Amino acid sequence: MIVLGIDPGYAIVGYGIVEYRNNRFRMLDYGAITTQAKVPFNIRLEQIYNEAAALMERCKPEAMAIEKLFFNTNQKTAIDVAQARGVLLLAAQQRGLNIAEYTPLQVKQSVVGYGRAEKKQVQEMTRIMLGLDSIPKPDDAADALAMAICHCHTSGSAIGSLE
Amino acid sequence: MIVLGIDPGYAIVGYGIVEYRNNRFRMLDYGAITTQAKVPFNIRLEQIYNEAAALMERCKPEAMAIEKLFFNTNQKTAIDVAQARGVLLLAAQQRGLNIAEYTPLQVKQSVVGYGRAEKKQVQEMTRIMLGLDSIPKPDDAADALAMAICHCHTSGSAIGSLE
Repeated sequence: MIVLGIDPGYAIVGYGIVEYRNNRFRMLDYGAITTQAKVPFNIRLEQIYNEAAALMERCKPEAMAIEKLFFNTNQKTAIDVAQARGVLLLAAQQRGLNIAEYTPLQVKQSVVGYGRAEKKQVQEMTRIMLGLDSIPKPDDAADALAMAICHCHTSGSAIGSLE
Repeated sequence: MIVLGIDPGYAIVGYGIVEYRNNRFRMLDYGAITTQAKVPFNIRLEQIYNEAAALMERCKPEAMAIEKLFFNTNQKTAIDVAQARGVLLLAAQQRGLNIAEYTPLQVKQSVVGYGRAEKKQVQEMTRIMLGLDSIPKPDDAADALAMAICHCHTSGSAIGSLE
């Protein structure tokens, strides 16, 4: 199973692509789609959509795991993150990916084993599980890889129980 | 100038298409894109995108005027409206439409002449300006037509001053 993890945003969209076979992980790609503040928002949305779509075409994930949104104190930011998340969902839906969403708590529980783990612990465990030499940068990409691992654990065990 | 007005949402997206020439309005089309609650949200997003894109292809508006979002008390609803609004912006951006956003206050000021006008007054004035026999239904479509009129007034006078 190949899973695309996404840490949604509009200035930075973290992504991480992970392959999961026989209870082993392999990191296929990670990075960030970035857009510039000086560019009009509607163009930034199109850039995010185009880059995410190209990534899906290239890596052919079967599923996209994306962070569930909660409102923070900044209304403007939250609306814009949600709008960007909308075009990411569209890109995945148009390509027939299974789409799953997880909270930060679920990711921590899945990757580290308990929900109150610190960010650094999640990153370090992600590094170890993927057999990487160092923690992936930027943080958004590391978060996206952890999101992908969370999905593999969650849906992987479901598949396992059917076999 | 042909303008597409949009009242964003995910269960109902109101739309209204208006032609504005020589200070006169003509209603070209109005209605609502609707999606069903029992359908998974990601599919509803794709339905909204597809129907909005088809509408733009058919009516060839030069501009899309869409309501500016503010947060209400229901977080879940606001996030989902913003996600749907994201795919509407994408459809317009991909087709090279000018995109403008207006608050309900701006629409009321533009259509009725003062910002504290009641919804019914806005609808009645929209009906008169477009030469319609009755107020368009549903309300979302009437709001979208008023949004389109607001944009024609706003950008129409800007264009006028350049001539």
